[in-house]
Amino acid sequence: MNKKIVVIGGVAGGASAAARARRLDEHAEVIMFERGPHVSFSNCALPFHLSGIVENSDDLVLMNPAQFKKQYNIEARVNSDVISINRRNKTITVKNVLTGESYDESYDKLVLSPGANPIVPSIPGTEMDHVFTVRNVVDIAKLDAYVKQDTVKQVAVIGGGFIGIEVAENLRLAGLDVSLIEFSNQVMAPFDYDMAQILHKEMIDQGVNLVVGDGLAKIETNEIELQSGKKLAADAVVLAIGVKPETTLAEQAGLEIGQTGGIKVDHNYVTNDSDIYAVGDAIEVYHKQTHKPTRLALAGPAQRQARAAADHMNRIPHRNTGVIGSSCIHVFDLNAAATGLNEKEAKNAGISYDFVYIIPNDKVGLMPESHPIHFKLIYEYPTGKILGAQAIGKGNVDKRVDVIATMITMGGTLEDLKELELCYSPMFGTAKDVVNFAALVALNRLNGEFKQVPVTNVRELVESNAFIMDAREKHEYERGHLKNAVNIPLSEFRDRLDEIPQNEPVYVHCRSAQRSYNAVMALQHLGYTNVYNISGSFLGICLYEYYNDQVTGREKIVTAYNFK
Amino acid sequence: MNKKIVVIGGVAGGASAAARARRLDEHAEVIMFERGPHVSFSNCALPFHLSGIVENSDDLVLMNPAQFKKQYNIEARVNSDVISINRRNKTITVKNVLTGESYDESYDKLVLSPGANPIVPSIPGTEMDHVFTVRNVVDIAKLDAYVKQDTVKQVAVIGGGFIGIEVAENLRLAGLDVSLIEFSNQVMAPFDYDMAQILHKEMIDQGVNLVVGDGLAKIETNEIELQSGKKLAADAVVLAIGVKPETTLAEQAGLEIGQTGGIKVDHNYVTNDSDIYAVGDAIEVYHKQTHKPTRLALAGPAQRQARAAADHMNRIPHRNTGVIGSSCIHVFDLNAAATGLNEKEAKNAGISYDFVYIIPNDKVGLMPESHPIHFKLIYEYPTGKILGAQAIGKGNVDKRVDVIATMITMGGTLEDLKELELCYSPMFGTAKDVVNFAALVALNRLNGEFKQVPVTNVRELVESNAFIMDAREKHEYERGHLKNAVNIPLSEFRDRLDEIPQNEPVYVHCRSAQRSYNAVMALQHLGYTNVYNISGSFLGICLYEYYNDQVTGREKIVTAYNFK
Repeated sequence: MNKKIVVIGGVAGGASAAARARRLDEHAEVIMFERGPHVSFSNCALPFHLSGIVENSDDLVLMNPAQFKKQYNIEARVNSDVISINRRNKTITVKNVLTGESYDESYDKLVLSPGANPIVPSIPGTEMDHVFTVRNVVDIAKLDAYVKQDTVKQVAVIGGGFIGIEVAENLRLAGLDVSLIEFSNQVMAPFDYDMAQILHKEMIDQGVNLVVGDGLAKIETNEIELQSGKKLAADAVVLAIGVKPETTLAEQAGLEIGQTGGIKVDHNYVTNDSDIYAVGDAIEVYHKQTHKPTRLALAGPAQRQARAAADHMNRIPHRNTGVIGSSCIHVFDLNAAATGLNEKEAKNAGISYDFVYIIPNDKVGLMPESHPIHFKLIYEYPTGKILGAQAIGKGNVDKRVDVIATMITMGGTLEDLKELELCYSPMFGTAKDVVNFAALVALNRLNGEFKQVPVTNVRELVESNAFIMDAREKHEYERGHLKNAVNIPLSEFRDRLDEIPQNEPVYVHCRSAQRSYNAVMALQHLGYTNVYNISGSFLGICLYEYYNDQVTGREKIVTAYNFK
Repeated sequence: MNKKIVVIGGVAGGASAAARARRLDEHAEVIMFERGPHVSFSNCALPFHLSGIVENSDDLVLMNPAQFKKQYNIEARVNSDVISINRRNKTITVKNVLTGESYDESYDKLVLSPGANPIVPSIPGTEMDHVFTVRNVVDIAKLDAYVKQDTVKQVAVIGGGFIGIEVAENLRLAGLDVSLIEFSNQVMAPFDYDMAQILHKEMIDQGVNLVVGDGLAKIETNEIELQSGKKLAADAVVLAIGVKPETTLAEQAGLEIGQTGGIKVDHNYVTNDSDIYAVGDAIEVYHKQTHKPTRLALAGPAQRQARAAADHMNRIPHRNTGVIGSSCIHVFDLNAAATGLNEKEAKNAGISYDFVYIIPNDKVGLMPESHPIHFKLIYEYPTGKILGAQAIGKGNVDKRVDVIATMITMGGTLEDLKELELCYSPMFGTAKDVVNFAALVALNRLNGEFKQVPVTNVRELVESNAFIMDAREKHEYERGHLKNAVNIPLSEFRDRLDEIPQNEPVYVHCRSAQRSYNAVMALQHLGYTNVYNISGSFLGICLYEYYNDQVTGREKIVTAYNFK
């Protein structure tokens, strides 16, 4: 008898599972249920409709039910809400949301891919007409139509994660005044606090009214009130605080929910019912590096899980290697990408780590569009095993982060990364690529060849009047420098050793740490025993200090920012 | 006593070795000799001066001797030709090429980084004033000045490797009529013949007069003659046939030369004289995958070798993991990158391999600048170990090839590549990245789930009247299709099975192989036992046939090319 495969949820995970199930078994009956009016839409591309990058919201829908039928012989039933799973009978109850009618449908194998719902906070005003969430094509079309009204000038986006930032950026590109409110002290959790400052600066520079460390308290007709009491004008409000796994159906059916709140699955994405699989944003996954359950609402893993589930139904084995969490985002003129563990996560997982932060150029400086890339590499100490990376810049940051993701997956170390032979031409990179360079600096650290202090500690050094040597040339120093820093260029320091104290710590920086590193190495050989390289250097310091200087009006530690 | 380190050659390898030697030992005496007037120039960026991308040839020089002295305390002596090595006394003899004077200089450790010389063929006319090679800043400035004369309209570039193509492109961008002559049947040896056709098409489309499979026989004042007897107008000729390692000095000194013609070195880049190192384009290296000696004239490996040599002098161990050969090039509007072994190389090395050729989009199709990427993955059969990749397209091809290079270095298999979690957002890629997709297709091959024929065999299929099913929609078919192909769209084939013969092989293609793959899988389940997917599909077929159709005027196998 032919197998009957029923899939609940018709977007990333669901559609992938259905299509793979068809390819593996032409004779199976495959039915896919979707509560909304569209299957197989590009949820990651939704925000780009707001700016017109995706002009027509219909284009976000990649395939309609007729195409599923004709091309894959898959029956896709839209506007069909699955309201219960009857495990004993192996049936589901489906409600047609247009007619209100219900019916039962049997299954041999069931795949749950219900996704996750936007979190709506319990505060006054969320039910109002000018308050939006962004989950599907209908949502984004509604939001787009609303903000296109002449009366709408100011939009508040709540939440500084992927969706919040992409929505904010695309609304800004559409010419609106945008505020972005983030409850924690930084946007984009995959990045550490120091790296996130670069994104903060970009958003401010692009005219976003950025507020971090403050939460939404109340929504009113034309303004919002924050927990601090601050009020902001807002003709429309977008809630992008986060998502919670859609587990109602699974819970009702008595399927096990994991400790993180996602549906619990085994190696093959089978739930505690051997005929029911679960995939995508609704499930709990296993983190390869922390060895703990976690959740990860990303499209790539969802597709892999869906394929694995379909494979398992057809007795095709697969490997479940756990997740590492690789992601990237476009933030106005910047690209940002991250993979594996950041400092916060390594700390939380109790993993012994160290890091380097470098700012090399992403391609040969002579070439058009050569830009600095801010690159932070996290590695296990003392093994040198690679744990994670964060990269931000105008250039090809995703390339570097993908290489690190590959290294993490393969258990690579700094030694492996150092020797890695990547493709090079001046248009594409530098002979010693960013990732090679990071490995070299990290190995020097690992071998105790030099000491470093992070940009996060520089304010304290300045305020305590530490001896800071600025190894840049005089004309660079004059365009902006750390208060108290002594300008002794690398090209002069051998003749000016008498100006560098032997009896106290010496902190050295230049623009991007290359010259300072040479100075640090030389000083050590010359008998200086307490020399530190300032990781991130002047460029990193300026970026790190910028946002907080803007909002707090505190005393600046630089005479002038210099981001060149 | 302080060590005296002498370096011969002041560009990539030499400058790197000197700088690293300084960082590791502030007290060492470091002297670097360079025959030409410049040290530390960007040799990979030379061709970009011809188009004005690098406007001023002086900018190609990254550091001058004064800067080496001031910043690194390295003495860089330019215009200094080292004419002999006296190993017994541990001295070298240096000739000042400006004054003609000679003197001896002693060394404790000597690093040879003499590079490689452009090959000049033994044919009439190479000594003429309008014949150029491109090795250094002086060469490129001379060529640039020459072609800028009003009388120079037509330039012949001999050799279709990296330098030849970059010179041809930059001359073309400067408005000149350019012919490119390549002796073998394709340009760019790192690419297989099928992939090289994509580059051939691009060069033709950009107005380069491309001639492959013909060699230079004679140079005359305003024309060149090829081995075929063909004559081409040429007011200037650039010889970019290839390079040979500069080993004269090493041979005179009795240093061992390897079987490939490069200076022989050990694990630590030490020659058969324990006080003499050799690095860069002049040496023979070990190929990690073929397990054979080879030569590799690339900047990245040269820098790594230089660092390793300096480290070894200071008793710092390193790992010599062998080379895999990663490279990339910009060819007008295309980017092209390759790593590891191609088909030719795997065959020559006697390695059992198979490959897949896919043409997915490099980012979500809705996004601006989403383009197809031609991706060929070579893997060991039957182990699935990853051997190499070639990628060509308008988008981020280097990213994909760098990931494969990392996989090769780490001994990755198709299973590893399939599960690889890369960063994704619609602006940067697709949820299932190009490399994941290639691994999935390859695993299907490895598991015998479907059979394929390459684009190289399609002409024979057409000419022998094989049954070819074109699974595209009718409107696509009508814009151009294979002669004899029967148009049965994926969306219709289940109702038109009676048109598909059971008793002969069925070859299926669509535009980029995705729909044809679905059809192949379904047909197999429906009882068809002899079904083949045409790898590369219609897009690949058109590209493969284009160049030869143009030059031979043979009968076309397509009614019209369709590259969309």
